[in-house]
Formats: sequence, structure tokens, C-alpha cells
Amino acid sequence: MQEKEIVMSEPTPKYWQTSVSQITPEHVYVRGYDLEDLIGIPFGAATYLLIKGELPTPQQAKVVDALLTGVLDYGLEKAGTVAARAVVSSNPNVQAGLATAILAAGEHSLAPENAARFIATQYAAFEASELELEEFAAQVVAQARADRLRIPGFGHPVFRGEDPRGQKLKHIAVSEGLWNGPAVLYEAIHQEFVKNPKVAHFPINDVGVIAAISTALGFTPEESTALAVIGTLPGIAAHVTEELRSGHLVRQIPAGDVDYSGEQRDYREDAAARGWSDPGTLS
Amino acid sequence: MQEKEIVMSEPTPKYWQTSVSQITPEHVYVRGYDLEDLIGIPFGAATYLLIKGELPTPQQAKVVDALLTGVLDYGLEKAGTVAARAVVSSNPNVQAGLATAILAAGEHSLAPENAARFIATQYAAFEASELELEEFAAQVVAQARADRLRIPGFGHPVFRGEDPRGQKLKHIAVSEGLWNGPAVLYEAIHQEFVKNPKVAHFPINDVGVIAAISTALGFTPEESTALAVIGTLPGIAAHVTEELRSGHLVRQIPAGDVDYSGEQRDYREDAAARGWSDPGTLS
Amino acid sequence: MQEKEIVMSEPTPKYWQTSVSQITPEHVYVRGYDLEDLIGIPFGAATYLLIKGELPTPQQAKVVDALLTGVLDYGLEKAGTVAARAVVSSNPNVQAGLATAILAAGEHSLAPENAARFIATQYAAFEASELELEEFAAQVVAQARADRLRIPGFGHPVFRGEDPRGQKLKHIAVSEGLWNGPAVLYEAIHQEFVKNPKVAHFPINDVGVIAAISTALGFTPEESTALAVIGTLPGIAAHVTEELRSGHLVRQIPAGDVDYSGEQRDYREDAAARGWSDPGTLS
Amino acid sequence: MQEKEIVMSEPTPKYWQTSVSQITPEHVYVRGYDLEDLIGIPFGAATYLLIKGELPTPQQAKVVDALLTGVLDYGLEKAGTVAARAVVSSNPNVQAGLATAILAAGEHSLAPENAARFIATQYAAFEASELELEEFAAQVVAQARADRLRIPGFGHPVFRGEDPRGQKLKHIAVSEGLWNGPAVLYEAIHQEFVKNPKVAHFPINDVGVIAAISTALGFTPEESTALAVIGTLPGIAAHVTEELRSGHLVRQIPAGDVDYSGEQRDYREDAAARGWSDPGTLS
Repeated sequence: MQEKEIVMSEPTPKYWQTSVSQITPEHVYVRGYDLEDLIGIPFGAATYLLIKGELPTPQQAKVVDALLTGVLDYGLEKAGTVAARAVVSSNPNVQAGLATAILAAGEHSLAPENAARFIATQYAAFEASELELEEFAAQVVAQARADRLRIPGFGHPVFRGEDPRGQKLKHIAVSEGLWNGPAVLYEAIHQEFVKNPKVAHFPINDVGVIAAISTALGFTPEESTALAVIGTLPGIAAHVTEELRSGHLVRQIPAGDVDYSGEQRDYREDAAARGWSDPGTLS
Repeated sequence: MQEKEIVMSEPTPKYWQTSVSQITPEHVYVRGYDLEDLIGIPFGAATYLLIKGELPTPQQAKVVDALLTGVLDYGLEKAGTVAARAVVSSNPNVQAGLATAILAAGEHSLAPENAARFIATQYAAFEASELELEEFAAQVVAQARADRLRIPGFGHPVFRGEDPRGQKLKHIAVSEGLWNGPAVLYEAIHQEFVKNPKVAHFPINDVGVIAAISTALGFTPEESTALAVIGTLPGIAAHVTEELRSGHLVRQIPAGDVDYSGEQRDYREDAAARGWSDPGTLS
Repeated sequence: MQEKEIVMSEPTPKYWQTSVSQITPEHVYVRGYDLEDLIGIPFGAATYLLIKGELPTPQQAKVVDALLTGVLDYGLEKAGTVAARAVVSSNPNVQAGLATAILAAGEHSLAPENAARFIATQYAAFEASELELEEFAAQVVAQARADRLRIPGFGHPVFRGEDPRGQKLKHIAVSEGLWNGPAVLYEAIHQEFVKNPKVAHFPINDVGVIAAISTALGFTPEESTALAVIGTLPGIAAHVTEELRSGHLVRQIPAGDVDYSGEQRDYREDAAARGWSDPGTLS
Repeated sequence: MQEKEIVMSEPTPKYWQTSVSQITPEHVYVRGYDLEDLIGIPFGAATYLLIKGELPTPQQAKVVDALLTGVLDYGLEKAGTVAARAVVSSNPNVQAGLATAILAAGEHSLAPENAARFIATQYAAFEASELELEEFAAQVVAQARADRLRIPGFGHPVFRGEDPRGQKLKHIAVSEGLWNGPAVLYEAIHQEFVKNPKVAHFPINDVGVIAAISTALGFTPEESTALAVIGTLPGIAAHVTEELRSGHLVRQIPAGDVDYSGEQRDYREDAAARGWSDPGTLS
């Protein structure tokens, strides 16, 4: 009998790969741990575990709670709240309202993403350089000025010098020993930045501090955005369920708040002028 | 050479089945037709083909155009428009705005679904019955009154007797010979309904007529909703791109339009009263 | 000079009312507390505060963490995960992915809403009745059998007798003294239900237990759904960012997994048969 | 009686401005025309009117129909279709499915936006220059090569030399006299581009032609995207309603198609190692 040569072929990679979770008939493993063990742990710790793939230390868990509660709610002054309430006033479905609020997060609000990307990029460049912190920071600020680029996360419409919410967030990160590397660099860039008398009163605002801390914790810019979005959802849930209870149907802009800038026109005349042989039906 | 027995096993059904489209390396077949042949046909006809699986007649295509243009735009008086503009004012992305407006379609606006379901259900019952049209209609109205149920699609906040938009839609369906079966039954139900002097002025409103026509064309209630939603998208696109051009960032509700009904409270005191050993950090 | 009579008119109610949050130039009040005080509190406690309007006790906060971590992630076996990864593989935007996953929560998955509504409704009926618990439960089960209605939250495809995740959740609620009223009634209904030998092995499943606990905590069915959705978001964020890192563009269903059930057809022939004078362009 | 001086103060601009539509109690004006006149016009013409603010000529309306039907459906090979079907298999709601498909349109598929932005920018630069068409085109291609930038809309995975769908679209625009300015420039850039033997077989693909035609018609890049998205909705509606009819609940990735790359771990051990005093509950 001929000896059979056993050749283990390289397994074909499957169409999907994941390291997030695994299902067996009786168990769900989440990041390698049995879901039964995880039920009941603090949500901040669970969030860190799911996104980073590792259990946090108590210090890291505390700082994640700070990131998640850093925004919480700006109410009807946030476009996402307005949009979510308008949606459920017409389509009374909680999920539609929550999804809408998330879609409103972007370039012009609730986006630590740009600031986090700036910080991560500068920190990588700093690590690759041979420069001292202050030297590097000075270079960044000079370059931004030369390129007329705004550094994300500096300045606030109300607060001058210090943004108390940013201060509280930083205080927590410092207390937990997690205000490090990227956050320290960002702060050095800020100190260099405010040497210019014209912007001497610009604080690092709350979004800037959130970006700095999440980058220092090792989150990517996309993950930062996810954290910021998750943090707003209890507030959105509160607004959406309040709207549903209000019984107000189909929110609209009161007519008195709208300028209509067009004018009434003659349809048949215009259609004929545009060359339609039957203006009545455009055919 | 041994004869090979060919056994055709029953093919295992695959996880996905579709009759909508098929892709080969060089061709896309849509409902069985080469996409190249379809490029350039009127959109109303394409919509009928995609959803129903058959090419429409010219009459059917014309009535689909009527359904698609029956709503078009109610501007800032529609919750979906408000929500969509709020979303793109913060997240300047056309797709997010269009998706938001669609999420606002539902029970309280732009939903021919309920009226279409009512019409389809009654029509099936009528076909299964041995009753004359008027007799059946009288029964439906009597039953609705006994059950204190609102018949969807009757009545309008402004129009009495006739809704001119509904009339225009019906006129098109009648002209094209497509005001039949379910639509005729719905009209008979309406005629019976308005015999009651208290509601004698209730017209069939535009949403009711859209539901009647789409059911008469053979669309399901879900397909009716899809048609209504598609019909609003050019208007939403117009509002969303207008908002992006406006340069207005982060729409909000002006503070003067909001009643805040809560009151300021003392955090530490309340946390202590709730039993937290460290009220400052809730731990 | 005529004396002017001062008449304080009842203030006109404003178009929007809220008790969620209030903004002043220097402070954001969330449910009456200064946001600065709230930054850093555990997210579970913040969630309770935002949605219910009151600070939780330590026991309530712990149970909210259990509710939020009760689902966490079922990975690629959940439709929402599949949909979210497909979306970001084409539109690489974290927000779009998170919103998509939320839209997938509904009637057929991740919806404690139906079970919570059942429990809340039965509990209100029980309170209004003069019946003993067992007596009431027996009535509910008999009625459901007579009406051939499924009681939501009973039964599991794998677990017989007990669902270990449900058990863990209940254990936490019991330990914290919060397995009360509605939860106890739901359990009594279950005990009555399993007297029927055919369903004697049906456990209360995890969604049922989540519904029972959230109702016992005083959350409405809509708020229950919001909690369940929020709890899945760290997992979705993990999947979405994993997908973005994978570099896989435009997920699709592999052709081998699709049965195409239509057939190729002749466009010009069919268009002519449908009555178009110019079949080539449908005009 | 004292003469009253009439002072017309400059009207305060209102918070919202729009020229899309105007509502009066009895009429809806859309782009200045009474909605009653518009009901029943071809949807392509309505789309042009809503987005551009002017009635199209018959030629423009025909080309809009070509743009709207240029994509129609790529079925289960499009990420948006997969996502939309997954969503409604769990949340059986047409609107959620349509919104999801729209969220899947983006950088990696169905986005004429980048190509349209390239064409519009180059055309503006060409108009501001004093160069001949070929000269300008040569400069653009040389610059792109020097910068190693990909020109959007060139090349196709299957078609060499010509993309038949792109050809059909161009043919319609040429026939209607609307293949002008920006489209002609884009074609000249393509002709220059394919002089390089390595890419001599690259056609202008369908998305490139859609971008060229929509820019030639005067649509902005954002409006181009809106048109492309609207054009896919009948196909999405067909897939979503097909999915709902299929009775398949909760689509998932079959376990056999997933590589799980993590490994099972010991929760208590890891939690203790991370410094938690009570590893069982992370506290």
C-alpha cells in the first residue's frame, strides 16, 4: 500500500474575518471572554474591551467614563437633537430617532475625529523626529501659521483662557495617570500657540481635550468619534422619548420663521417657452 | 470505458434568492433585460419595471409618474425636510440628508401604507363576498362606525368636498383607464361615508387617492410607501443642497422658542441622598 | 392720564418644551445638574439620569449596567452587524455604520419593546384587578392560549429549562433588590406557562429578562429599546472599525451564494407588446 | 391728527430661507408653480425642476432620465443592497431599508461626486486659462502623473477600450445636444491620458460619463450624487420588498464564511492582572 503523503494546504481565507466575537451553540465569546462573565460589568469598561480588544485597568475604565460623559447633551442647540425629534414626531420609532441623531454628527459638530487625527499625526511625526517637545511644538505652530491652517480644538465662543469642561476632563486623566504622550504634545502645541497675543485667550476646548485623551488612551480617530457618538445617546434617547410622550405630531418650521425667496410663475407659459409641444403634461 | 452515470442531484437552495437582477462579467440584467437597453427610458417606467418585474404599458407608466409627482414637496412644513436640513448643517453629506428624510416618513406623514392596506384588505374581502359594491361599502362604513375606527384617507384640514390634488390624480388614472377595482371600491366606501351629515364635507385626500391608485395598479402597501418616498427625494435633494450652499452651520432651535421645564439642582446633595458613598464621582 | 390696567396674560406656550437640558452661555444643565459635575460619573448612572430624569441609587446604576451589557455583541450573526460592515465597506464613515446597525434593531431582533409592552400592560391590569398573583397569571396564560397568542420572551433555540444569560441578569437584579412587581408577575406567568408539558422546557430568554428588569426599573417599552440599542453600540463600533481597517472594499454576496430566479428577456419585443410606439426609448 | 410717518425698516432676515417651495392654505407652490399643475409630469422633468429651480427643455429632461437610469441596479453585488436586505430582515420597515442603502453610497461606490468635482474644477480652470483644449488636457494629465494622482472615472475591471453603458449614456447626451463644455474637456483629458500605452485600454467608465454629463447639465457634484442615489432607489425598493416577501428572518453571515481570529481567555485571571480588586464585577 502506497504511503499517503499528508499535505496540509494553507487554509483558504474566508470572506469574513473578525476578532470581535464568536458564537457557539451555548456560548457567546466577546473578545475571547464568555458573555456570561461580562454581563453586569460597568459599561465604560465594556466599551473599552469591545473596541480595544483588551480589558481596561480601573484607571482606563474611569477615563473612558469621562470621555463618554464629556458631552452628554446640548439639547435643542444641537442639530442632531432637532433632527431626531422632528423624525420621531412623524415616524414614532425610537430607532429611527437614534439613527438620525448619529447621522448629524460630523464635520461641524461632535467630531473629535479631526482633532484626534491631527494629534495622532503630529505625535507620530514627533516620535520619528529627534526634536525636543517645545522645539517640535514651535515648528508645528509656525507651519500651521504659514499654511494658514486652523489647529483643531483650540478656541471657544464663550470661554476665555480655560474651558471648565475641558479642565475637568483633563483633571480626571491626570489623576488616573493617563495624560501622557499625545496629550502632553497637544498641550505643548497649545502653549506655543497662545504666545501669539491675538489668540492668547484661546483655551483647549472640550472637543480638543476629548481628542487628546482618547488618542493618549490609544484610540484611533474613528474610534474617538464612535465614543463621542455613544456618549450622546442617553441624551438623545431622553429627547426622543420626551418627544413621543409630548403627543406633538409632525414638527415643522413655523411659517413665520421662513423667508420664501422664490416667486409664483405661470406653468403653461414657461413650459411652452421651454419647447414642450404639450405643456400641460410635459410631453 | 465505463459508462458514467449522470445523477442530477436536486440543487441545494442557496442562501440568497433574487429575481431582481443578475450580473455577468460583461452584462447587467435587470428584471431580465440588458441594462444597456434600459438606460434612457423614462424613470417612471423604470420604477414600475424594477418594482413589479414587468415593463409597464404607456398608460401604467403615466400613472406611475402621477404617483411619483403627487407629493413632490411640502417644504419646511414637513418634518423630514427640517430633519434633513438640520443633519447636513452639521454633517455636510448629501447621503446623510437624504437618508434622514426617508426615516421621517411614517405613521404620521407620507404614509399611504395604512390607507393602501385598508383598501387592499377590503378589496380582497369584497372579492370573496357575494355582495354588491354599494352593499359591501355600506357594511364597511357601518362596521368602522361601530368599532369607532377612522377610515384612512378621508378628510383634510383645509379642503372641503374635494381635494384638488386628489382630483388631479384621479383624473389622470381615469384618463388612462386605470381607475378600477380597488379604487372604485374605495370611492364607493367614501360615498357611503359622506352620507353622514357630520362628515359630508370630507374629501378623499391626496394620500387616500395615491393609496387607491397604487393599489389599483397592483402595488402592495409596502411598495406604495416606497413610491411615495421616492417621489419626495428630488425635493429633499433640493432642500439639502440649498442648505449646504447657505453656509449655515449647525441648525438649532432658537433659545426663544424653547420652554425649559426643569429646575437647577444640587448634584452633591442629591447624590448623597441617593446613597452614594462618594457623591463627587458616583462611586 | 388714564390708569393703565396691567393684565398679565398667560404666557404663550412655546413651540418646544423640554426638561432634558438647558444651556446658558457658561453652563450646560443636564436634568438640572451642571454638566461639569456629571463629567466622569459612570456611564450607566448617566444613562439612568438622562432617560429617567433622576440620579439612580447605586443599586439602580448597577442594574442599568447589567441591562446595557446583557447583549453586547452577537457578531456576524446579527443582521445589524452585517449591514453596518457592508455600509462602511462602501462609505467609510463610522457614523453611517453605527446608524445602520441601529436601523436593524426591530421586530425580529434586539427588541425588548414587545416583551416590555406585554409586561407593562399585564402589570397595570394586575394592579387594577383584585386577583392573587397566581390566579392572574393563570388567566393570562389561558387567554393567550385561547387567542393563540405567543407570549413574548419565552423559549430559546438552544437553551432548555434555563437561559444562563437570563439567569445572570436576574441574579444581578435580585441581588440589588430590584427584581420586583412587573418582573415577579412575568415570572409567575412563566411558571404557569410551563405547566403545559409541550412547552415545559421553555426558559425566559435573555430578551424577556431584559424586558422584565427594565420594566421593573420603571422604564417604558420605548426606553427599553433605547437601552438595548445603546448596549450594542460598543460591539458595532468594534466591528465597524475592524471593517475599515480590513481594507476590504464594497462587501457583496459572493455570486455562488445567490440563486437568480429570473430569465433573460427581449426588451424590444416586450416593449412593443406592451404598446409603446418607440420601444427603443419607451416613448 | 398727526401725520404718521411710515418707516419701512429693513426686514429682519428670518432664521430659514428657501426658494424650493411655499405653502399657503389652499396651494403648494413648488419652485413657483402650483403643485396641481405639476402632478403627472414625467419624474425626470420634475427632478430637474426641483433641483435646478427651472423647468427643463425636452432635451434636458431626456438626459436626466438617462442619468437616473444609468445605474438602476447591481443587485447583491452592491454593498447597499446587502445592507438594506439585512436591515429589513430584522426590522421589517421599508423606510429603514431605503435609508440604509443610501448610507452605503460613498467614496467606494456609486459616487460620481469625486469625478464630478474633478471635472467641474478642471473646467473652471480651463475657462480661466488662455489655453487650447488639447494643451490644457495635456497639462492636466502631466500634472496628475507628476503628483501620482488617479484621475477619477477612467478604467474598468472588465471593459477595455469602451464601456458600453458609458457609450450609451454619451450617445444620448450627444443626440440631445447636451454633450458640451465640461464633458468635452473630460473627453479630451481622457484622450490625452490613453496616449500612455500602459493605460491605452482604459475607457471612461459609466460613473465617469455620469459625472461628465451631470456637470455639463450644470449640476453640482453634490447634486450629481443625489441624482445617482435617486436612480438606485427603484432597485432597492425591489430588493427590500422581495426580502420582506421572502419570509427570511435576520440575515446573517453563515458561520462557515467567517474566520474567527481571537482566542478564548480567562476572564477572572485577566481582570485580576489588570488590577481590579473584585474581578468578578469589575469594581
